[in-house]
Amino acid sequence: MTAPDLAAISTPSRLAEPCEGISLEEVQLAARNHGMPLEALRYDVTPPGMHYLLTHYDIPFVDPSTYRLTLGGLVSRELSLDLDAIRSRPQVSHLVTLECAGNGRARLEPRPVSQPWLVEAVGTSRWTGTPLAPLLREAELESSAVDVVFTGADHGIERGVEQDYQRSLPVAEAMRDDVLLVYEMHGAPLPPQHGSPLRLIVPGWYGMASVKWLTRIEVVDAPFEGYQMRAYRVRQRYEDDGVPLTRIEPRALLVPPGFPDYMSRTRVLRAGRTTVEGRAWSGWAAVNAVEVSTDGGRTWESADLEPAPDPRAWARWTWTWDATTGSYDVCVRAGDESGRSQPVDQPWNRGGYANNLVQCVPVAVTD
Amino acid sequence: MTAPDLAAISTPSRLAEPCEGISLEEVQLAARNHGMPLEALRYDVTPPGMHYLLTHYDIPFVDPSTYRLTLGGLVSRELSLDLDAIRSRPQVSHLVTLECAGNGRARLEPRPVSQPWLVEAVGTSRWTGTPLAPLLREAELESSAVDVVFTGADHGIERGVEQDYQRSLPVAEAMRDDVLLVYEMHGAPLPPQHGSPLRLIVPGWYGMASVKWLTRIEVVDAPFEGYQMRAYRVRQRYEDDGVPLTRIEPRALLVPPGFPDYMSRTRVLRAGRTTVEGRAWSGWAAVNAVEVSTDGGRTWESADLEPAPDPRAWARWTWTWDATTGSYDVCVRAGDESGRSQPVDQPWNRGGYANNLVQCVPVAVTD
Repeated sequence: MTAPDLAAISTPSRLAEPCEGISLEEVQLAARNHGMPLEALRYDVTPPGMHYLLTHYDIPFVDPSTYRLTLGGLVSRELSLDLDAIRSRPQVSHLVTLECAGNGRARLEPRPVSQPWLVEAVGTSRWTGTPLAPLLREAELESSAVDVVFTGADHGIERGVEQDYQRSLPVAEAMRDDVLLVYEMHGAPLPPQHGSPLRLIVPGWYGMASVKWLTRIEVVDAPFEGYQMRAYRVRQRYEDDGVPLTRIEPRALLVPPGFPDYMSRTRVLRAGRTTVEGRAWSGWAAVNAVEVSTDGGRTWESADLEPAPDPRAWARWTWTWDATTGSYDVCVRAGDESGRSQPVDQPWNRGGYANNLVQCVPVAVTD
Repeated sequence: MTAPDLAAISTPSRLAEPCEGISLEEVQLAARNHGMPLEALRYDVTPPGMHYLLTHYDIPFVDPSTYRLTLGGLVSRELSLDLDAIRSRPQVSHLVTLECAGNGRARLEPRPVSQPWLVEAVGTSRWTGTPLAPLLREAELESSAVDVVFTGADHGIERGVEQDYQRSLPVAEAMRDDVLLVYEMHGAPLPPQHGSPLRLIVPGWYGMASVKWLTRIEVVDAPFEGYQMRAYRVRQRYEDDGVPLTRIEPRALLVPPGFPDYMSRTRVLRAGRTTVEGRAWSGWAAVNAVEVSTDGGRTWESADLEPAPDPRAWARWTWTWDATTGSYDVCVRAGDESGRSQPVDQPWNRGGYANNLVQCVPVAVTD
């Protein structure tokens, strides 16, 4: 038989045609990856199994009993650690809100064809592990060190490039106190789909930086330009150099009020006083303002913002609504101490990244 | 403001137009519900968080500390039990394979517009609880008892009908030894999305029968005709009476060989000897044959079938493939001791139920 044509199975990225529905290819991704059902915004810590999940390739099976993490490249002493050695190091837990860089993609027009997230690719968990920085200090970085490259065990082909999933951090980011090598989620060993037995967690950054199934750390003397570094960039045209994605843009989401229609997910709410609630977060700075609108964003009122349970996690907000019979479009938006806030016009880019357009939920209030 | 038009937000079921892409409404369902990534077919017991999940409305929050289950209707003595009372009863665990009745829907042509499952709405877990039958015996069913109706705390509107999710079983099915009131999944309390604090598990039946967030059991003297009993039927036309869905049709699935292309999910495999593996199940009888094809179903070879770990769970199968360079369509099909097997032509029906069409996976074998 003739050799298969890999170019035919791994085609360039593209935009959907106007009015082109979502394809079965995109649904293949949507059926295996999943968002966090928005009613889980009621929890400070997302219950196990409800945290969003995005895997580029397959979930690999990595045997914890034979697992080793290697740390090499531009270091004075290479390290090779098994799981017991990593677990015996100082242990730290943080509550961290993670969000997929592609969250909001499927609402963009034109729609970049990829994992079709609406707004639900988010979650907050308690991640437990050991800080990366002391390990890097033990290995002694050479003075020429620029980037730290993290390699996962997940292997696939993407836009024609066969690869292990790899992402880098600049040395200064990798040396942050709260960048962790994580072996527990919610006080239990990492489940396979969240990176068992060991993953990186980079608080404040979009999820693509938190490499799962971590097998190798390599220190290099130039900015790393692997596939995923070129892919996760905000660009208007395919040929643009673009701007790399790093920290999470501010966003607030609300628990959809009332109860849903099965198919349209439109909400039905009985008239009366109700508490609208949700969470807000930003990877740039603390959220300092959340506003709610019931008229699709024409007028806004301030919501009450509670302290975040961890500076790396979302904050709860509430707003009292005296809902009277009628049709509403309930929206929420957040701003943070860096001055960033959520746009009312779509922040379009070719990869469909960092779309923190204001969330609006249609609500039918009945007697 | 005028009252909202509920008919406009809760429209009748429909079929997609020819070549109509999948809508954002369907993607709203796909983003919150999720299938089991097929590489998890390597596990006898699906790891927590990877089991398929379908919720019609919202995941309700039911407080375990104030929870009560009531059992009433045509019984001599009504029962009202808190969680401690249920947990103090005889405890039983079963490995059970559950599958959504809508699994395979999105592959049908024309496509019924609803949750767009491909083939992955399945999972096997260890469910722990107490058998229902002794509870029914304690309550003493009246001689006129026909159906047992199970009501969940999940509330919504569907095709214009506001409802708590409700399904019934005929008395004889409800009295089966292995129908359980379940409070643990994988040895841990049920997570919110799988029915916390108590759910029904009906082994062998499609998932719609295993009511989550169970709050009330009622014995009635006529076949129950609630919304979900009318909805989950195999019918060719909207106006047909149809046939109710009960037990799971036989199906085998394979772990896709090699590694995937990110977008198309087409597999790339290095030439050489490889073990193709997967699981097979049927709710009607034990699986007794699994066959594999590499040419899209033109020729078939027998796979090796292992004993199922529980009569209510799937069985592992393996098949050795000496893969040479070329393009293949790797398919698998199962048959059971009742004589049922998987069709090669789509078993179309208007709700998109019980589509156990043979799974085929495109594989590019390279040097």
